[in-house]
Amino acid sequence: MKITFLTIFPQLFDSFLASPIPQRAIKKGVLEVDVVDIKDYSPGSFRHIDDSPFGGGPGMVMRCQPVLDALRAVKKEQPAGTSVTAALSPAGAVFTQKAAHRYADLDHLILLCGHYEGMDERIYRHVDEEVSLGDFILTGGELAAMAVADAVIRLLPGAIRSESTGEESFENGLLEYPQYTQPAVYDGESVPDVLLSGNHEKIRKWRLKESLRKTLLRRPDLLEGRDLSEEEKRFLEEIKAESSVTDR
Amino acid sequence: MKITFLTIFPQLFDSFLASPIPQRAIKKGVLEVDVVDIKDYSPGSFRHIDDSPFGGGPGMVMRCQPVLDALRAVKKEQPAGTSVTAALSPAGAVFTQKAAHRYADLDHLILLCGHYEGMDERIYRHVDEEVSLGDFILTGGELAAMAVADAVIRLLPGAIRSESTGEESFENGLLEYPQYTQPAVYDGESVPDVLLSGNHEKIRKWRLKESLRKTLLRRPDLLEGRDLSEEEKRFLEEIKAESSVTDR
Repeated sequence: MKITFLTIFPQLFDSFLASPIPQRAIKKGVLEVDVVDIKDYSPGSFRHIDDSPFGGGPGMVMRCQPVLDALRAVKKEQPAGTSVTAALSPAGAVFTQKAAHRYADLDHLILLCGHYEGMDERIYRHVDEEVSLGDFILTGGELAAMAVADAVIRLLPGAIRSESTGEESFENGLLEYPQYTQPAVYDGESVPDVLLSGNHEKIRKWRLKESLRKTLLRRPDLLEGRDLSEEEKRFLEEIKAESSVTDR
Repeated sequence: MKITFLTIFPQLFDSFLASPIPQRAIKKGVLEVDVVDIKDYSPGSFRHIDDSPFGGGPGMVMRCQPVLDALRAVKKEQPAGTSVTAALSPAGAVFTQKAAHRYADLDHLILLCGHYEGMDERIYRHVDEEVSLGDFILTGGELAAMAVADAVIRLLPGAIRSESTGEESFENGLLEYPQYTQPAVYDGESVPDVLLSGNHEKIRKWRLKESLRKTLLRRPDLLEGRDLSEEEKRFLEEIKAESSVTDR
């Protein structure tokens, strides 16, 4: 797939694009990346990319012309196939792992990074969707776009060891179980015995139960929309009986 | 305030830290930043920062020793005052603007970036809290830590024009109203007349109503926990009467 970033701060992407996961995906031929500087589409030596808001108020608002000219130029050279243009915006739909999978299936993802202070509303009529990282304010869309891209790129075939993605948080609708590695005892704290037992079925059950426990304690909202297996229901009953966590 | 990033990929922070907002905050003396390479705390020429999980399974898990030795070294040199050590983790509390304000009031924020594939669970017992950007999986905590830092840094006095932060999305519990700038007509699309009227009270009312409309349409969850003023209640009634948006 191809990912195009539209930005007024292209150099903000340098470190991310030089990092191992994007580099591996590019070398494997599953990813192409382009960073387009919106300032290149603002005519004149004084690059005029934003202006004061109509109606007054603080901050600067990004102008239609350079943003939409840059977007049109990108779309003209677009690879064949499916594409989505998504603007990073605090008013967008909150990004989730499901959206990461949807984007990873595209041939072309265009990520438009605006000032979080504002882009001219008429720009949004030319994008397919608005996406937000969450309920907080960033200086601009760039860090949000990189987070979205990172979540997408690691789903591409060959970008990471493929067996690594199945058991992580959210992929099965639960938070991940606790992980432990060497040494078995560190600073007086031991790894749970079951993980040293070599009994795969016991380990599987322990991990599922601890995954359910963590999710129930920290993110009960994730359990609400989820079809539970009989085994999961039984573990949840056990967890509630064991702990002070009760039905809310 | 001081922000310390603990990471195995220190170079991932280069572009962000060279960007205008952190640079301005550093120059104004309101921000100090340190990036600590966890690999420096792993002895030997072969830097052993992760290992296979006990109990089997895919992926690598970050080891206690280098992470906790790095954290102890940072805490030893910590500035006086309030501090929080937060680990970026998909199982953490979801980051919000409220957390950004809480962090911005600290003297020292330590952001621990793990593999998202996993850190040894015993590491988490040495941090104050776990924070997540949202329900998606990143390669590591680095991009999440930069997003958190960006949201925090822009709240520091002098980092951006102070009047810019009050009317943005989430600061008043609503999504921001639509913004427009020059020209008044672009490609056949006009700015709403009211914004050209010069009538400040009308503009204020229009913006509040459009802010409520956007929030009702896209993020009705934000309205649920909010105390509405009489004016806001009236506008919401008008919006519901005007549109196909009905009570759910």
